[in-house]
Amino acid sequence: MPKLWNDTIEAHRLAVREAILDATWKLAAEYGVLAVTMSQIAERAGVGRATLYKYFPDVESILVANHDRHVGDHLAHLAVLRDRAPDPGRQLEAVLEGYAMICHHRGRHGTEELSALLHREEHVGAAQRQLVDLFRDVIAGAAAAGRLRADVVPAELASYCLHALAAAGELTSEEAVRRLVAVTLAGLRATA
Amino acid sequence: MPKLWNDTIEAHRLAVREAILDATWKLAAEYGVLAVTMSQIAERAGVGRATLYKYFPDVESILVANHDRHVGDHLAHLAVLRDRAPDPGRQLEAVLEGYAMICHHRGRHGTEELSALLHREEHVGAAQRQLVDLFRDVIAGAAAAGRLRADVVPAELASYCLHALAAAGELTSEEAVRRLVAVTLAGLRATA
Repeated sequence: MPKLWNDTIEAHRLAVREAILDATWKLAAEYGVLAVTMSQIAERAGVGRATLYKYFPDVESILVANHDRHVGDHLAHLAVLRDRAPDPGRQLEAVLEGYAMICHHRGRHGTEELSALLHREEHVGAAQRQLVDLFRDVIAGAAAAGRLRADVVPAELASYCLHALAAAGELTSEEAVRRLVAVTLAGLRATA
Repeated sequence: MPKLWNDTIEAHRLAVREAILDATWKLAAEYGVLAVTMSQIAERAGVGRATLYKYFPDVESILVANHDRHVGDHLAHLAVLRDRAPDPGRQLEAVLEGYAMICHHRGRHGTEELSALLHREEHVGAAQRQLVDLFRDVIAGAAAAGRLRADVVPAELASYCLHALAAAGELTSEEAVRRLVAVTLAGLRATA
């Protein structure tokens, strides 16, 4: 087969996969994660059940793939915010506020909570690990610049930040989100 | 019917309900929440499917009831810790550390995450609201004693604490949990 034909097949495959992920995400938002079935997903995505099963073995694996896709998008956004900031202290502020705003706009029924529910440890995907690493590295940079407490390692502080900022999903205004970022940041700061 | 007979029926009803909740919780821990079915629950709890449906209409409602039971237990424990502490500042520390330890021992596959996934808002049960209120009131007490920042209201600080301390579920030692409590507390403190 000529290369162009392969490219077309690959593009089609990706488009079907995206349609499946989108359909699952919308169904989960509408009916709740626990209520979504493979039949509903096939119907909403406009594919046959047999086709759906060629892509994913069960609802859980689709939710995991969807979660990884979302976190990947967030990661790219946060990396841009980080790279725009002029120094380690402002990189930290930019990443914290950026992540809090993601949590805020995602709302309470987001995908992050899902990773805690999915049973197997390996379901914490590569993108989620990269998110923790991004926070850890930005925190380590700010710590090296002498702005942060030194009694807790950056990896633990990264976990604290990611959890604390998830509270933004419950807040009703961007002003409140900025207050949450200030409080979270205060926890990281070196005490006088 | 004599009163004793009614009491026996009520005790039996409660025992069956507890068995259903326990069975569901164990199945969810073993196979993941998404994989649990009403048939499995009936078998594990040692009741018929018809009996199970007299108690709960679906898996989701059992998970909600189970979540509420767990949070109720935590709440009672935290109230004891609060009432033992001699002043508002130490009440706050005791409640923060107590909740962090609960999250730590519950581990990553706890029930709290579930409430975020369950679709309808009203599924945030009474016990969960009482937990937020307990944090809010202890924070307000410490704030009145002049120990905390005044630029953020106690309710927002309570939400921050509950989220930040959930990071304890990922930590591998109680020493690390105590560091997390110190970091979270530093976020609440008035800045110099």
